[in-house]
Amino acid sequence: MKESKLILLRHGESLYNKENLFTGWTDIDLSEKGVEEAKEAGQILQRNDLLPDICFTSWLKRAIHTAQIALREMEWEHIDAIRHWKLNERHYGAWQRHNKDAIKKEVGEEMFLAVRRGYDTPPPPLPDGDPRLPYNDPKYRSVDSSQLPRSESLKDTRRRTLNYFAEAIAPQLARGNRVLVSAHGNSLRALTMAIEHLTPAEIVKVEIPTGAPIVYTFDETLHLLKKDLPA
Amino acid sequence: MKESKLILLRHGESLYNKENLFTGWTDIDLSEKGVEEAKEAGQILQRNDLLPDICFTSWLKRAIHTAQIALREMEWEHIDAIRHWKLNERHYGAWQRHNKDAIKKEVGEEMFLAVRRGYDTPPPPLPDGDPRLPYNDPKYRSVDSSQLPRSESLKDTRRRTLNYFAEAIAPQLARGNRVLVSAHGNSLRALTMAIEHLTPAEIVKVEIPTGAPIVYTFDETLHLLKKDLPA
Repeated sequence: MKESKLILLRHGESLYNKENLFTGWTDIDLSEKGVEEAKEAGQILQRNDLLPDICFTSWLKRAIHTAQIALREMEWEHIDAIRHWKLNERHYGAWQRHNKDAIKKEVGEEMFLAVRRGYDTPPPPLPDGDPRLPYNDPKYRSVDSSQLPRSESLKDTRRRTLNYFAEAIAPQLARGNRVLVSAHGNSLRALTMAIEHLTPAEIVKVEIPTGAPIVYTFDETLHLLKKDLPA
Repeated sequence: MKESKLILLRHGESLYNKENLFTGWTDIDLSEKGVEEAKEAGQILQRNDLLPDICFTSWLKRAIHTAQIALREMEWEHIDAIRHWKLNERHYGAWQRHNKDAIKKEVGEEMFLAVRRGYDTPPPPLPDGDPRLPYNDPKYRSVDSSQLPRSESLKDTRRRTLNYFAEAIAPQLARGNRVLVSAHGNSLRALTMAIEHLTPAEIVKVEIPTGAPIVYTFDETLHLLKKDLPA
Protein backbone atom coordinates (compact mmCIF):
# COMPACT_ATOMS: atom_id res chain seq x y z
CA MET A 1 0.00 0.00 0.00
CA LYS A 2 1.11 3.53 -0.90
CA GLU A 3 2.06 5.56 2.16
CA SER A 4 -0.27 8.50 2.58
CA LYS A 5 1.04 12.03 2.71
CA LEU A 6 -0.36 15.24 4.13
CA ILE A 7 1.16 18.31 2.50
CA LEU A 8 0.49 21.55 4.39
CA LEU A 9 0.94 24.76 2.47
CA ARG A 10 0.51 28.18 4.04
CA HIS A 11 -0.38 30.95 1.60
CA GLY A 12 2.22 33.60 1.00
CA GLU A 13 2.06 37.36 1.48
CA SER A 14 -1.35 39.00 1.07
CA LEU A 15 -2.10 42.65 0.40
CA TYR A 16 -3.05 43.06 4.09
CA ASN A 17 0.21 41.59 5.40
CA LYS A 18 1.97 44.33 3.48
CA GLU A 19 -0.16 46.97 5.17
CA ASN A 20 0.19 45.52 8.71
CA LEU A 21 -3.57 44.95 9.14
CA PHE A 22 -5.31 42.12 11.01
CA THR A 23 -6.78 39.94 8.25
CA GLY A 24 -8.58 36.93 9.77
CA TRP A 25 -11.59 36.17 7.57
CA THR A 26 -11.20 39.31 5.45
CA ASP A 27 -11.07 37.92 1.91
CA ILE A 28 -8.00 39.69 0.63
CA ASP A 29 -5.92 38.50 -2.32
CA LEU A 30 -2.24 37.56 -2.54
CA SER A 31 0.33 40.27 -3.22
CA GLU A 32 2.71 39.82 -6.17
CA LYS A 33 5.21 38.40 -3.71
CA GLY A 34 2.53 35.95 -2.49
CA VAL A 35 1.95 34.80 -6.08
CA GLU A 36 5.69 34.15 -6.46
CA GLU A 37 5.75 32.18 -3.20
CA ALA A 38 2.91 29.98 -4.49
CA LYS A 39 4.80 29.29 -7.73
CA GLU A 40 7.91 28.36 -5.77
CA ALA A 41 5.85 26.00 -3.62
CA GLY A 42 4.66 24.28 -6.82
CA GLN A 43 8.26 23.96 -8.01
CA ILE A 44 9.29 22.42 -4.67
CA LEU A 45 6.46 19.87 -4.81
CA GLN A 46 7.27 18.96 -8.40
CA ARG A 47 11.01 18.68 -7.75
CA ASN A 48 10.30 16.31 -4.87
CA ASP A 49 7.80 14.20 -6.80
CA LEU A 50 4.97 15.21 -4.44
CA LEU A 51 2.00 15.10 -6.82
CA PRO A 52 -1.18 15.25 -4.72
CA ASP A 53 -4.27 13.13 -5.39
CA ILE A 54 -6.65 15.71 -3.94
CA CYS A 55 -6.51 19.27 -2.69
CA PHE A 56 -8.30 20.98 0.21
CA THR A 57 -8.48 24.74 0.72
CA SER A 58 -10.26 27.21 2.95
CA TRP A 59 -12.94 29.52 1.52
CA LEU A 60 -10.52 32.45 1.44
CA LYS A 61 -9.10 33.44 -1.92
CA ARG A 62 -5.51 33.80 -0.72
CA ALA A 63 -5.49 30.05 0.06
CA ILE A 64 -7.59 29.10 -3.00
CA HIS A 65 -5.26 30.99 -5.33
CA THR A 66 -2.12 29.63 -3.65
CA ALA A 67 -3.23 26.07 -4.45
CA GLN A 68 -4.33 26.99 -7.99
CA ILE A 69 -1.04 28.74 -8.75
CA ALA A 70 1.10 25.94 -7.27
CA LEU A 71 -0.81 23.21 -9.15
CA ARG A 72 -0.68 25.20 -12.39
CA GLU A 73 3.06 25.53 -11.99
CA MET A 74 3.25 21.73 -11.60
CA GLU A 75 0.97 21.05 -14.62
CA TRP A 76 -1.14 19.02 -12.18
CA GLU A 77 -4.46 20.83 -12.21
CA HIS A 78 -6.83 17.91 -12.77
CA ILE A 79 -7.25 16.90 -9.11
CA ASP A 80 -10.44 17.68 -7.21
CA ALA A 81 -10.39 20.84 -5.08
CA ILE A 82 -12.54 20.57 -1.94
CA ARG A 83 -13.06 23.74 0.08
CA HIS A 84 -14.39 24.40 3.58
CA TRP A 85 -14.70 27.43 5.83
CA LYS A 86 -13.41 25.31 8.74
CA LEU A 87 -9.95 25.64 7.16
CA ASN A 88 -10.22 29.45 7.24
CA GLU A 89 -7.77 31.60 9.18
CA ARG A 90 -8.54 32.32 12.84
CA HIS A 91 -11.38 34.84 13.05
CA TYR A 92 -9.93 38.06 14.41
CA GLY A 93 -13.25 39.58 15.52
CA ALA A 94 -13.46 43.33 15.92
CA TRP A 95 -9.75 43.69 15.22
CA GLN A 96 -10.14 42.59 11.59
CA ARG A 97 -9.07 45.23 9.05
CA HIS A 98 -7.48 47.36 11.80
CA ASN A 99 -3.83 48.33 11.98
CA LYS A 100 -1.88 46.12 14.39
CA ASP A 101 0.10 48.98 15.94
CA ALA A 102 -3.04 51.04 16.48
CA ILE A 103 -4.75 48.11 18.23
CA LYS A 104 -1.71 47.54 20.45
CA LYS A 105 -1.75 51.19 21.48
CA GLU A 106 -5.50 51.03 22.14
CA VAL A 107 -5.69 47.80 24.20
CA GLY A 108 -2.23 47.75 25.79
CA GLU A 109 0.61 45.31 25.30
CA GLU A 110 -0.64 42.70 27.77
CA MET A 111 -4.06 42.20 26.13
CA PHE A 112 -2.48 42.43 22.69
CA LEU A 113 -0.02 39.63 23.45
CA ALA A 114 -2.64 37.49 25.23
CA VAL A 115 -4.71 37.49 22.05
CA ARG A 116 -1.88 37.21 19.55
CA ARG A 117 0.45 34.82 21.33
CA GLY A 118 -1.90 33.13 23.80
CA TYR A 119 -3.96 30.00 23.30
CA ASP A 120 -7.43 30.69 24.60
CA THR A 121 -7.99 34.46 24.53
CA PRO A 122 -10.18 35.68 21.64
CA PRO A 123 -10.18 39.28 20.40
CA PRO A 124 -13.39 41.27 21.06
CA PRO A 125 -16.27 39.78 19.00
CA LEU A 126 -17.93 41.52 16.08
CA PRO A 127 -21.07 43.30 17.35
CA ASP A 128 -24.58 42.79 15.94
CA GLY A 129 -25.04 44.65 12.68
CA ASP A 130 -21.32 44.78 11.91
CA PRO A 131 -20.80 44.59 8.12
CA ARG A 132 -17.85 42.27 8.76
CA LEU A 133 -20.09 39.51 10.21
CA PRO A 134 -19.61 36.38 8.06
CA TYR A 135 -23.33 36.15 7.34
CA ASN A 136 -23.19 39.41 5.37
CA ASP A 137 -21.11 37.61 2.76
CA PRO A 138 -23.42 35.51 0.53
CA LYS A 139 -20.82 32.70 0.53
CA TYR A 140 -21.55 31.96 4.19
CA ARG A 141 -25.35 31.87 3.84
CA SER A 142 -25.20 28.13 3.16
CA VAL A 143 -23.77 27.63 6.68
CA ASP A 144 -25.89 27.42 9.85
CA SER A 145 -25.16 30.87 11.27
CA SER A 146 -24.87 29.53 14.83
CA GLN A 147 -21.70 27.75 13.68
CA LEU A 148 -20.02 30.88 12.35
CA PRO A 149 -17.67 32.70 14.76
CA ARG A 150 -17.63 36.40 15.68
CA SER A 151 -14.06 36.07 16.93
CA GLU A 152 -11.83 33.16 17.88
CA SER A 153 -9.01 32.15 20.15
CA LEU A 154 -6.45 29.75 18.72
CA LYS A 155 -8.24 27.09 20.76
CA ASP A 156 -11.52 27.86 18.93
CA THR A 157 -9.78 27.69 15.55
CA ARG A 158 -8.23 24.38 16.57
CA ARG A 159 -11.60 22.86 17.44
CA ARG A 160 -13.31 23.49 14.08
CA THR A 161 -10.20 22.74 12.02
CA LEU A 162 -9.67 19.38 13.72
CA ASN A 163 -13.35 18.59 13.38
CA TYR A 164 -13.03 19.05 9.62
CA PHE A 165 -9.77 17.12 9.52
CA ALA A 166 -11.46 14.11 11.13
CA GLU A 167 -14.53 14.40 8.91
CA ALA A 168 -13.00 14.98 5.49
CA ILE A 169 -9.19 14.89 5.37
CA ALA A 170 -8.25 11.89 7.53
CA PRO A 171 -10.50 9.55 5.48
CA GLN A 172 -8.51 10.53 2.37
CA LEU A 173 -5.24 9.73 4.15
CA ALA A 174 -6.65 6.40 5.34
CA ARG A 175 -7.23 5.51 1.67
CA GLY A 176 -3.51 6.02 0.97
CA ASN A 177 -3.93 9.34 -0.80
CA ARG A 178 -1.57 12.29 -1.02
CA VAL A 179 -3.48 15.29 0.28
CA LEU A 180 -2.55 18.93 -0.24
CA VAL A 181 -4.05 21.41 2.25
CA SER A 182 -3.68 25.06 1.30
CA ALA A 183 -4.65 27.21 4.27
CA HIS A 184 -3.52 29.68 6.92
CA GLY A 185 -1.09 30.18 9.78
CA ASN A 186 -3.53 29.29 12.52
CA SER A 187 -5.62 26.57 10.87
CA LEU A 188 -2.38 24.82 9.87
CA ARG A 189 -1.01 25.30 13.40
CA ALA A 190 -4.07 23.41 14.65
CA LEU A 191 -3.29 20.48 12.35
CA THR A 192 0.39 20.54 13.35
CA MET A 193 -0.57 20.57 17.02
CA ALA A 194 -2.68 17.44 16.64
CA ILE A 195 -0.25 15.53 14.42
CA GLU A 196 2.85 16.34 16.47
CA HIS A 197 1.07 16.14 19.84
CA LEU A 198 2.13 19.65 20.88
CA THR A 199 0.89 21.35 24.06
CA PRO A 200 -0.76 24.79 24.01
CA ALA A 201 2.50 26.24 25.37
CA GLU A 202 4.40 24.65 22.48
CA ILE A 203 2.00 25.48 19.64
CA VAL A 204 1.85 29.20 20.34
CA LYS A 205 5.58 29.32 19.61
CA VAL A 206 5.35 27.40 16.32
CA GLU A 207 5.58 29.52 13.16
CA ILE A 208 4.30 27.85 9.99
CA PRO A 209 6.48 29.02 7.07
CA THR A 210 4.76 30.67 4.07
CA GLY A 211 5.09 29.02 0.66
CA ALA A 212 7.26 26.18 2.02
CA PRO A 213 5.41 22.85 2.18
CA ILE A 214 5.46 20.69 5.33
CA VAL A 215 5.03 17.01 4.48
CA TYR A 216 3.84 14.34 6.92
CA THR A 217 3.98 10.67 5.91
CA PHE A 218 1.62 8.18 7.56
CA ASP A 219 1.13 4.44 7.49
CA GLU A 220 -2.32 2.96 6.85
CA THR A 221 -3.32 3.35 10.51
CA LEU A 222 -2.52 7.07 10.30
CA HIS A 223 0.54 6.54 12.46
CA LEU A 224 3.07 9.29 11.69
CA LEU A 225 6.19 7.89 10.04
CA LYS A 226 8.10 11.09 9.29
CA LYS A 227 8.01 14.82 8.73
CA ASP A 228 9.85 16.43 5.83
CA LEU A 229 10.52 20.00 4.82
CA PRO A 230 11.28 19.61 1.10
CA ALA A 231 13.23 22.33 -0.65
CA MET B 1 -37.50 22.75 -2.58
CA LYS B 2 -35.04 24.77 -4.65
CA GLU B 3 -35.22 23.92 -8.34
CA SER B 4 -31.97 22.44 -9.53
CA LYS B 5 -30.03 23.97 -12.37
CA LEU B 6 -27.46 22.59 -14.76
CA ILE B 7 -25.26 25.33 -16.22
CA LEU B 8 -23.22 24.21 -19.23
CA LEU B 9 -20.23 26.34 -20.15
CA ARG B 10 -18.05 25.63 -23.18
CA HIS B 11 -14.52 26.98 -22.94
CA GLY B 12 -13.58 29.81 -25.23
CA GLU B 13 -10.86 30.06 -27.83
CA SER B 14 -7.70 28.04 -27.22
CA LEU B 15 -4.28 28.53 -28.75
CA TYR B 16 -4.94 25.57 -31.10
CA ASN B 17 -8.27 26.95 -32.35
CA LYS B 18 -6.32 29.98 -33.51
CA GLU B 19 -3.91 27.77 -35.44
CA ASN B 20 -6.63 25.56 -37.04
CA LEU B 21 -5.29 22.34 -35.45
CA PHE B 22 -7.29 19.34 -34.20
CA THR B 23 -7.10 19.57 -30.40
CA GLY B 24 -9.07 16.72 -28.79
CA TRP B 25 -7.21 15.68 -25.63
CA THR B 26 -4.18 17.87 -26.34
CA ASP B 27 -3.88 19.94 -23.18
CA ILE B 28 -3.59 23.39 -24.67
CA ASP B 29 -4.38 26.60 -22.80
CA LEU B 30 -6.88 29.36 -23.55
CA SER B 31 -5.88 32.23 -25.82
CA GLU B 32 -6.26 35.78 -24.54
CA LYS B 33 -9.60 35.89 -26.31
CA GLY B 34 -10.58 32.66 -24.51
CA VAL B 35 -9.71 34.27 -21.15
CA GLU B 36 -11.95 37.22 -22.00
CA GLU B 37 -14.79 34.88 -22.97
CA ALA B 38 -14.50 33.14 -19.57
CA LYS B 39 -14.67 36.48 -17.74
CA GLU B 40 -17.76 37.43 -19.73
CA ALA B 41 -19.37 34.11 -18.84
CA GLY B 42 -18.76 34.91 -15.16
CA GLN B 43 -20.38 38.31 -15.61
CA ILE B 44 -23.42 36.73 -17.29
CA LEU B 45 -23.84 34.20 -14.45
CA GLN B 46 -23.50 36.91 -11.81
CA ARG B 47 -25.89 39.27 -13.58
CA ASN B 48 -28.50 36.50 -13.72
CA ASP B 49 -28.01 35.43 -10.12
CA LEU B 50 -26.75 32.02 -11.18
CA LEU B 51 -24.34 31.22 -8.33
CA PRO B 52 -23.46 27.53 -8.54
CA ASP B 53 -23.21 25.21 -5.52
CA ILE B 54 -20.61 22.97 -7.14
CA CYS B 55 -18.49 22.94 -10.27
CA PHE B 56 -17.45 20.07 -12.54
CA THR B 57 -14.71 20.29 -15.17
CA SER B 58 -12.82 17.98 -17.49
CA TRP B 59 -9.13 17.27 -16.89
CA LEU B 60 -8.11 19.66 -19.66
CA LYS B 61 -6.74 23.04 -18.61
CA ARG B 62 -8.78 25.06 -21.09
CA ALA B 63 -11.95 23.92 -19.26
CA ILE B 64 -10.37 24.08 -15.78
CA HIS B 65 -9.18 27.65 -16.36
CA THR B 66 -12.50 28.72 -17.88
CA ALA B 67 -14.31 27.75 -14.67
CA GLN B 68 -11.63 29.32 -12.45
CA ILE B 69 -11.68 32.59 -14.36
CA ALA B 70 -15.49 32.78 -14.46
CA LEU B 71 -15.83 32.02 -10.73
CA ARG B 72 -13.08 34.50 -9.86
CA GLU B 73 -14.90 37.15 -11.84
CA MET B 74 -18.04 36.37 -9.78
CA GLU B 75 -16.17 36.40 -6.42
CA TRP B 76 -17.59 32.91 -5.96
CA GLU B 77 -14.51 30.73 -5.73
CA HIS B 78 -15.28 28.78 -2.57
CA ILE B 79 -17.31 25.99 -4.19
CA ASP B 80 -15.85 22.51 -4.68
CA ALA B 81 -14.35 21.78 -8.09
CA ILE B 82 -14.71 18.14 -9.14
CA ARG B 83 -12.87 17.04 -12.26
CA HIS B 84 -13.09 13.96 -14.48
CA TRP B 85 -11.54 12.84 -17.76
CA LYS B 86 -14.97 11.62 -18.87
CA LEU B 87 -15.87 15.28 -19.43
CA ASN B 88 -12.87 15.72 -21.77
CA GLU B 89 -13.28 16.74 -25.39
CA ARG B 90 -13.81 14.01 -27.97
CA HIS B 91 -10.52 12.16 -28.56
CA TYR B 92 -9.39 12.97 -32.07
CA GLY B 93 -6.96 10.05 -32.39
CA ALA B 94 -4.18 10.30 -34.94
CA TRP B 95 -5.54 13.63 -36.20
CA GLN B 96 -4.72 15.41 -32.93
CA ARG B 97 -2.25 18.29 -33.33
CA HIS B 98 -2.56 18.14 -37.13
CA ASN B 99 -3.76 20.96 -39.35
CA LYS B 100 -7.39 20.55 -40.35
CA ASP B 101 -6.87 21.58 -43.98
CA ALA B 102 -3.91 19.23 -44.36
CA ILE B 103 -5.97 16.32 -42.99
CA LYS B 104 -8.84 17.12 -45.34
CA LYS B 105 -6.48 17.09 -48.30
CA GLU B 106 -4.94 13.81 -47.13
CA VAL B 107 -8.11 11.80 -46.42
CA GLY B 108 -10.55 13.44 -48.83
CA GLU B 109 -13.67 15.44 -48.12
CA GLU B 110 -15.99 12.46 -47.63
CA MET B 111 -13.97 10.81 -44.86
CA PHE B 112 -13.23 14.21 -43.32
CA LEU B 113 -16.92 15.09 -43.07
CA ALA B 114 -17.92 11.62 -41.86
CA VAL B 115 -15.56 12.04 -38.90
CA ARG B 116 -16.21 15.70 -38.20
CA ARG B 117 -19.93 15.93 -38.84
CA GLY B 118 -21.01 12.29 -38.48
CA TYR B 119 -22.13 10.49 -35.34
CA ASP B 120 -20.34 7.16 -35.26
CA THR B 121 -17.18 7.46 -37.34
CA PRO B 122 -13.97 7.84 -35.30
CA PRO B 123 -10.74 9.26 -36.73
CA PRO B 124 -7.85 6.76 -37.12
CA PRO B 125 -6.69 5.60 -33.65
CA LEU B 126 -3.33 6.49 -32.13
CA PRO B 127 -0.89 3.63 -32.84
CA ASP B 128 1.10 1.75 -30.15
CA GLY B 129 4.05 3.79 -28.94
CA ASP B 130 2.57 7.11 -30.02
CA PRO B 131 3.68 9.84 -27.58
CA ARG B 132 0.15 11.28 -27.72
CA LEU B 133 -1.38 8.17 -26.08
CA PRO B 134 -3.13 9.33 -22.87
CA TYR B 135 -1.13 6.91 -20.75
CA ASN B 136 2.08 8.84 -21.54
CA ASP B 137 0.70 11.74 -19.50
CA PRO B 138 1.18 11.02 -15.76
CA LYS B 139 -2.28 12.47 -15.05
CA TYR B 140 -3.93 9.50 -16.74
CA ARG B 141 -1.91 6.82 -14.93
CA SER B 142 -4.55 6.69 -12.19
CA VAL B 143 -7.08 5.46 -14.79
CA ASP B 144 -7.44 1.85 -15.92
CA SER B 145 -5.75 2.12 -19.33
CA SER B 146 -8.35 -0.12 -20.98
CA GLN B 147 -10.87 2.68 -20.37
CA LEU B 148 -8.81 5.34 -22.14
CA PRO B 149 -9.61 5.93 -25.82
CA ARG B 150 -7.21 6.03 -28.76
CA SER B 151 -9.80 7.91 -30.83
CA GLU B 152 -13.52 8.49 -30.53
CA SER B 153 -16.65 9.02 -32.56
CA LEU B 154 -19.20 11.44 -31.12
CA LYS B 155 -21.12 8.31 -30.10
CA ASP B 156 -18.12 7.11 -28.05
CA THR B 157 -17.78 10.52 -26.38
CA ARG B 158 -21.49 10.47 -25.62
CA ARG B 159 -21.27 7.10 -23.89
CA ARG B 160 -18.58 8.03 -21.33
CA THR B 161 -19.89 11.54 -20.75
CA LEU B 162 -23.41 10.27 -19.99
CA ASN B 163 -21.97 7.55 -17.78
CA TYR B 164 -20.27 10.24 -15.69
CA PHE B 165 -23.38 12.42 -15.74
CA ALA B 166 -25.43 9.59 -14.23
CA GLU B 167 -22.74 8.70 -11.70
CA ALA B 168 -21.71 12.13 -10.40
CA ILE B 169 -23.68 15.06 -11.81
CA ALA B 170 -27.31 13.88 -11.76
CA PRO B 171 -27.11 13.04 -8.00
CA GLN B 172 -26.13 16.68 -7.34
CA LEU B 173 -29.13 17.88 -9.35
CA ALA B 174 -31.41 15.48 -7.49
CA ARG B 175 -30.31 17.19 -4.25
CA GLY B 176 -31.54 20.53 -5.61
CA ASN B 177 -28.09 21.92 -6.36
CA ARG B 178 -26.99 24.37 -9.00
CA VAL B 179 -24.27 22.66 -10.97
CA LEU B 180 -21.76 24.35 -13.28
CA VAL B 181 -20.13 22.08 -15.88
CA SER B 182 -17.17 23.61 -17.69
CA ALA B 183 -16.25 21.40 -20.61
CA HIS B 184 -16.00 21.05 -24.39
CA GLY B 185 -18.02 21.20 -27.58
CA ASN B 186 -18.55 17.45 -27.88
CA SER B 187 -18.88 16.42 -24.22
CA LEU B 188 -21.47 19.19 -23.78
CA ARG B 189 -23.22 18.09 -26.98
CA ALA B 190 -23.59 14.66 -25.40
CA LEU B 191 -25.29 16.17 -22.35
CA THR B 192 -27.52 18.34 -24.53
CA MET B 193 -28.49 15.31 -26.62
CA ALA B 194 -29.63 13.39 -23.53
CA ILE B 195 -31.43 16.29 -21.86
CA GLU B 196 -33.22 17.50 -24.98
CA HIS B 197 -33.82 13.99 -26.39
CA LEU B 198 -32.13 14.75 -29.69
CA THR B 199 -31.48 12.14 -32.37
CA PRO B 200 -28.01 11.52 -33.85
CA ALA B 201 -29.12 13.40 -36.97
CA GLU B 202 -30.14 16.37 -34.82
CA ILE B 203 -27.15 16.48 -32.47
CA VAL B 204 -24.52 16.59 -35.22
CA LYS B 205 -26.06 19.90 -36.31
CA VAL B 206 -26.06 21.47 -32.81
CA GLU B 207 -23.31 23.98 -32.14
CA ILE B 208 -22.64 24.72 -28.46
CA PRO B 209 -21.69 28.41 -28.13
CA THR B 210 -18.35 29.30 -26.46
CA GLY B 211 -18.41 31.39 -23.30
CA ALA B 212 -22.23 31.65 -23.29
CA PRO B 213 -23.86 29.55 -20.56
CA ILE B 214 -26.78 27.22 -21.33
CA VAL B 215 -29.01 26.78 -18.28
CA TYR B 216 -31.40 23.87 -17.76
CA THR B 217 -33.84 23.95 -14.83
CA PHE B 218 -35.19 20.68 -13.42
CA ASP B 219 -37.74 19.67 -10.83
CA GLU B 220 -36.84 17.18 -8.10
CA THR B 221 -37.51 14.21 -10.38
CA LEU B 222 -35.01 15.63 -12.88
CA HIS B 223 -37.85 16.50 -15.22
CA LEU B 224 -36.76 19.39 -17.46
CA LEU B 225 -38.75 22.56 -16.74
CA LYS B 226 -37.00 25.03 -19.01
CA LYS B 227 -33.91 25.98 -20.96
CA ASP B 228 -32.46 29.48 -20.77
CA LEU B 229 -29.69 31.27 -22.60
CA PRO B 230 -28.90 34.11 -20.18
CA ALA B 231 -27.12 37.18 -21.51
